[in-house]
Amino acid sequence: MTSLSSLYASKEDRPELKTNMNVDYVVQYKVDKVRAEAEAGFTQLIETLTRVGLASEVRNGDESSLLVFVKVASENYLANHIYRERVQDWLYGVRIAAPEKDVGKEFTSQPVTEAERLRTVYLLITKPKNEGGAGITPNVGQWKYVTSIFPLHDHGFNRRWIKQWSTKYYINDQDLDQIRDRFGESVAFYFAFVQSYFAFLVFPASFGLGAWIILGRYSWFYALVTSLWSIVFFEWWQKKEADLAVQWGVRGVSRIQHPRTEFKWEHEAADPVTGEAVKVYPPTKRLQTQLLQIPFAMGCLAILGALYVFCFSIEIFLGEIYNGPLKSYLTFTPTIILTGVLPTLSTILGNFAEKLTVMENYDTNDAHHASLVRKIFIINFITSYTPLFLSAFVYMPFGNLLVPYLDIWKATAVKFTSEKAISTQGFHINPDRLKKQMIYFTVTAQIVNFALEVVVPYAKRMVFNEVEKAQTKGKAVAVNDVPEEHAFLERVRNEAKLDIYDVTSDYREMIVQFGYLSLFSAIWPLTPLAFLINNWVELRSDAMKIAVSSQRPIPWRADSIGPWLNALGFLSWFGSLVSSAIVYLFSGDSEGPGGDPSNIVGWGLLLSILLSEHLYLAAQWTVRYALSQLDSPGLQKERSQRFAMRKQILEESLGPEVTEKPLPPTPAAGEKITRQSLEEEARKISTKGGGTPEQLFWLRQQGMDETIQIGRKLISQTGVAKA
Amino acid sequence: MTSLSSLYASKEDRPELKTNMNVDYVVQYKVDKVRAEAEAGFTQLIETLTRVGLASEVRNGDESSLLVFVKVASENYLANHIYRERVQDWLYGVRIAAPEKDVGKEFTSQPVTEAERLRTVYLLITKPKNEGGAGITPNVGQWKYVTSIFPLHDHGFNRRWIKQWSTKYYINDQDLDQIRDRFGESVAFYFAFVQSYFAFLVFPASFGLGAWIILGRYSWFYALVTSLWSIVFFEWWQKKEADLAVQWGVRGVSRIQHPRTEFKWEHEAADPVTGEAVKVYPPTKRLQTQLLQIPFAMGCLAILGALYVFCFSIEIFLGEIYNGPLKSYLTFTPTIILTGVLPTLSTILGNFAEKLTVMENYDTNDAHHASLVRKIFIINFITSYTPLFLSAFVYMPFGNLLVPYLDIWKATAVKFTSEKAISTQGFHINPDRLKKQMIYFTVTAQIVNFALEVVVPYAKRMVFNEVEKAQTKGKAVAVNDVPEEHAFLERVRNEAKLDIYDVTSDYREMIVQFGYLSLFSAIWPLTPLAFLINNWVELRSDAMKIAVSSQRPIPWRADSIGPWLNALGFLSWFGSLVSSAIVYLFSGDSEGPGGDPSNIVGWGLLLSILLSEHLYLAAQWTVRYALSQLDSPGLQKERSQRFAMRKQILEESLGPEVTEKPLPPTPAAGEKITRQSLEEEARKISTKGGGTPEQLFWLRQQGMDETIQIGRKLISQTGVAKA
Repeated sequence: MTSLSSLYASKEDRPELKTNMNVDYVVQYKVDKVRAEAEAGFTQLIETLTRVGLASEVRNGDESSLLVFVKVASENYLANHIYRERVQDWLYGVRIAAPEKDVGKEFTSQPVTEAERLRTVYLLITKPKNEGGAGITPNVGQWKYVTSIFPLHDHGFNRRWIKQWSTKYYINDQDLDQIRDRFGESVAFYFAFVQSYFAFLVFPASFGLGAWIILGRYSWFYALVTSLWSIVFFEWWQKKEADLAVQWGVRGVSRIQHPRTEFKWEHEAADPVTGEAVKVYPPTKRLQTQLLQIPFAMGCLAILGALYVFCFSIEIFLGEIYNGPLKSYLTFTPTIILTGVLPTLSTILGNFAEKLTVMENYDTNDAHHASLVRKIFIINFITSYTPLFLSAFVYMPFGNLLVPYLDIWKATAVKFTSEKAISTQGFHINPDRLKKQMIYFTVTAQIVNFALEVVVPYAKRMVFNEVEKAQTKGKAVAVNDVPEEHAFLERVRNEAKLDIYDVTSDYREMIVQFGYLSLFSAIWPLTPLAFLINNWVELRSDAMKIAVSSQRPIPWRADSIGPWLNALGFLSWFGSLVSSAIVYLFSGDSEGPGGDPSNIVGWGLLLSILLSEHLYLAAQWTVRYALSQLDSPGLQKERSQRFAMRKQILEESLGPEVTEKPLPPTPAAGEKITRQSLEEEARKISTKGGGTPEQLFWLRQQGMDETIQIGRKLISQTGVAKA
Repeated sequence: MTSLSSLYASKEDRPELKTNMNVDYVVQYKVDKVRAEAEAGFTQLIETLTRVGLASEVRNGDESSLLVFVKVASENYLANHIYRERVQDWLYGVRIAAPEKDVGKEFTSQPVTEAERLRTVYLLITKPKNEGGAGITPNVGQWKYVTSIFPLHDHGFNRRWIKQWSTKYYINDQDLDQIRDRFGESVAFYFAFVQSYFAFLVFPASFGLGAWIILGRYSWFYALVTSLWSIVFFEWWQKKEADLAVQWGVRGVSRIQHPRTEFKWEHEAADPVTGEAVKVYPPTKRLQTQLLQIPFAMGCLAILGALYVFCFSIEIFLGEIYNGPLKSYLTFTPTIILTGVLPTLSTILGNFAEKLTVMENYDTNDAHHASLVRKIFIINFITSYTPLFLSAFVYMPFGNLLVPYLDIWKATAVKFTSEKAISTQGFHINPDRLKKQMIYFTVTAQIVNFALEVVVPYAKRMVFNEVEKAQTKGKAVAVNDVPEEHAFLERVRNEAKLDIYDVTSDYREMIVQFGYLSLFSAIWPLTPLAFLINNWVELRSDAMKIAVSSQRPIPWRADSIGPWLNALGFLSWFGSLVSSAIVYLFSGDSEGPGGDPSNIVGWGLLLSILLSEHLYLAAQWTVRYALSQLDSPGLQKERSQRFAMRKQILEESLGPEVTEKPLPPTPAAGEKITRQSLEEEARKISTKGGGTPEQLFWLRQQGMDETIQIGRKLISQTGVAKA
């Protein structure tokens, strides 16, 4: 049912894809064995939804669930909510122009996007009760039977989208705006980032191709250019990001925090500032938990490192020393171990990271997510780059020293085979090893990844669907449907089964890729070219993933790519260290130290790292400064809005007397008024008699003319005295 | 006249110090030989002042100048100006709470400080005409006869100030608030910074004393602690700075830029955003000029470096090699050369920096100043630290290799003396050299500096005054005064002769001092103690400098210590590199490489630098994160104001219907209204006949109750099917 061709073939005219029946959200409700509890829960669900102004309809789901269709009962009520949200945006400084006072006018000048509508309804369903929402949190506490809440895909749009993108080379800002209007800024930012990265890759791809032909591997010039490129990209993206945020009206939206439902507070206290009751969890306690990140990172490094060293040593032994029976089969052992163990281990560590983050008990979703991303990045950093680090900085320089230790594998092999002695061959450092690994990571792994991401889930779903169909064939559930709704409901049931789209894993993939480029591409200058091609496909396959194999995502807002920006900056900087070390070690005729550390000049290596890093920092400063001098459409828009707002508020709320410049008390002939006031002062003094020294001081010269006269006299006297 | 005791001895009761005659500003007007021109200029001056609402009185100045006393003609008019400025602050986000609509109320709740008044009047005098000011720029163009514009000291306050500070150990926030109210935030920030620095120095001073006793010189532990301390200080100050800015209501005030009068624009263009006419100077052109900073920096390094190397080599030759006649006198040669040449050279380079900055042609005063400060910092960095760099990284490691080149001095000496051969002694590296230099810079130089800053100007002024008195004795000028004004006018004439206080040079001094601490204090751990003592005096002597030996400064606003913050951060970071190198080179038994580079392990040195720097960066990140978790009074104030503003605006300008939460369309018994609306929909459909599938979809279940009923039925069915 969800195959691409069946969904989007233009000849097929399927009515169930043409309407969403005005449904805003579908709530999937699990029916448990304990029927009474499920019924009570269901009643509560519908009542709660109704109480916050949502209309609902219920239909059969699959054999153990119901589908509750939800829409806002009154469009006016929704408009009111959206207007309030816009006002809040303005108060938080997210939008610079205040919303029009006339609600109708406001919605004409800035129509409600689909994303805005869906986000508002979602918040209505999930926000805590004291904030005016229904407080429904899937799978938690009293809502444990609610398994998911998702909006329905707009298949008409999806079809146009996929069609457009698969035929055009370059994705422009209008395309991104469309994504933003449908799926929210959070998803739009991901596509904007990948598209920018893709466009930027054109330069290193062509330069890398040239370098590959002319300069060969391990060229310091290539490494330098790539490093400068990564600086420009990183700095440019930060600017672009801010620009997009302004254009999308979400700049600073991360300041509006959604409280995390799972937050456990120790006590409630009145905010010393606002008097509002705030939930408090002592930050020192959190800091203690956060410190666990250090052993966590070291643990990850130890566990994953050990696995890699283990596989690596077997690989070396089998590939380059061992010469006994079954060699051609045995060489696959490490790959098999890695493919079997690594994903499991990653998942376990990922779950552990999740638990650790929950323990850190953040009060907002953003803080929670940022902390989780930090840990995910650590895990991915280790799993992705350790093999290359081992090859470049352990195998190549220390290989000859370490190989004797591999004799334990020889001993092991002897134990397992009947032979008394295993035949081995002399060990020689394999200088091509690094390059081969790099090609594996940049080409093979990307293809494998594509398959895992797109093909496998698709195939899996097809098989499951067939199995299910066979199982439920002839059963009562589906037959209950009203005939004219059947096709639509079947479609919704299918969408209910889809995965939830998680933009984090897509970011992760791109950032890890950027890391290979920044850290290791000097090994194989065709890396950026491979990534360029990959990312053209990636962009489209990610679009397809959203449109076809995921539930429609909740259209969250965002004002940046969030915590991944730090990861990007870190990799760009770290690249300057690693690249320079690699270039120093491997450039020249001998291509590497050949397994013997005595071939390395220690101070030379360290000096090149030190210089490279500081060159990097200096270049970054320069690029940042140069970019800050440029204007951008977003900043221009912001300035223009601010200007308009300033003018308006000045006139509206403070009255025209403030906007006009105050008139000096001397209108045309300055001296007259001054004289008048002086004369009045003099009169006052004479009635009182005497006068203070201050008053007398200012009465010596009566008005401007006298001051000028006396001044001229003094000047002429001075002249005389001087002459 | 301006001697401290005569000014502030409490027994003396001098009426001229008790009143400023309500004078806001004094304009000093030079009388040239071309009398006619001076008279015309004077007429114009008075007319221009009168036209912007300022009253003026003229009196004799010294023998070749007049004093024009200026005050605002109408207090109402001034209040209007100040109110407008506060409104502008609010629009730029500098103040969070909008000013009261009632002007009177506003000034009762937030009275006008002296600094605010003086700043407003100063802007009235100097702002360009098209912005409502008189556009008077001293010494430029048509105003070349105006030599200075200065406010009068409040001697009553000054006396209390100096008295208070010289008797108390610790300067608190109230003291700073007083400074701010009188001299503006720019000066107050300087004192706040020095006071914070002073308070922070207590820790390294006591730790350094301990280290000096226990650890000795070149202790890595001392260097580590100092480096960490400098991180904490730097990060803490940034927080404190923001906090003070909020408390003083100037946060973000640097965004309100005063246009630079000397800015030369190429063409006027309409701003694409606001439509306002803006003056444009192409940034690419400016960038070209800015690039001249690189040759400028290299030139400074070459010139000053050459001077230092020259003196250094003579010093070594005379002090440690030469053993001929007049040795005890000749050893002073380098000091004499340096004392003679260095200040001149610094002044020349400083003037050159000024010219270069003028060429860069910035459009705002702040940008101009920041660029100038950058250059001043470069010059000072080179002049201050080169001697120590030469000793630590040239003399100590390479001394033995370089000494043979000093034979040219021997040859020179032979030429100048009649002797055929100069007697010399064997050269030995003097390991105490570094420490002696360090003591010179941290103790001797600070005392000399104090003398140059306070004692010399004072003495100079006393002598000049005496000479002048002798010269003008019996001349007509002074006699012209009205007797009751004479003392006051004499006082003003004296203030007119004082220097203009420049906070930049005071900052420079402190930042250079911080550099010695951060870069070199491992050489002599008593450095922070010396600085602690020095800064106690420095704080008071700077206060005295303002109160006694400078004109009262124009009370400018500022929201930070400005460009010096970058210099501070740079020195703190650079300290991690230099300290680690010094510790690596000199710690251990031999105390340094003893003049022979072969004693240095290159990779060890580089590794310690590399490690130290990254430890520094990691520690900085940690400290920054930890500090960001803390709340501060300033941030609390800001939040509370924002909260109040939000509430107020919501209610005032958008009406109460927005502040109230929108009521869901189902008041008490949710189902009824839903049913009503559904029934109406059904009625509509029946009149039209048919109905769209969407309408029909939502009509299957009539209201909440039916949804619940049908849901329960479906649940029970699912249960049955499952059982």
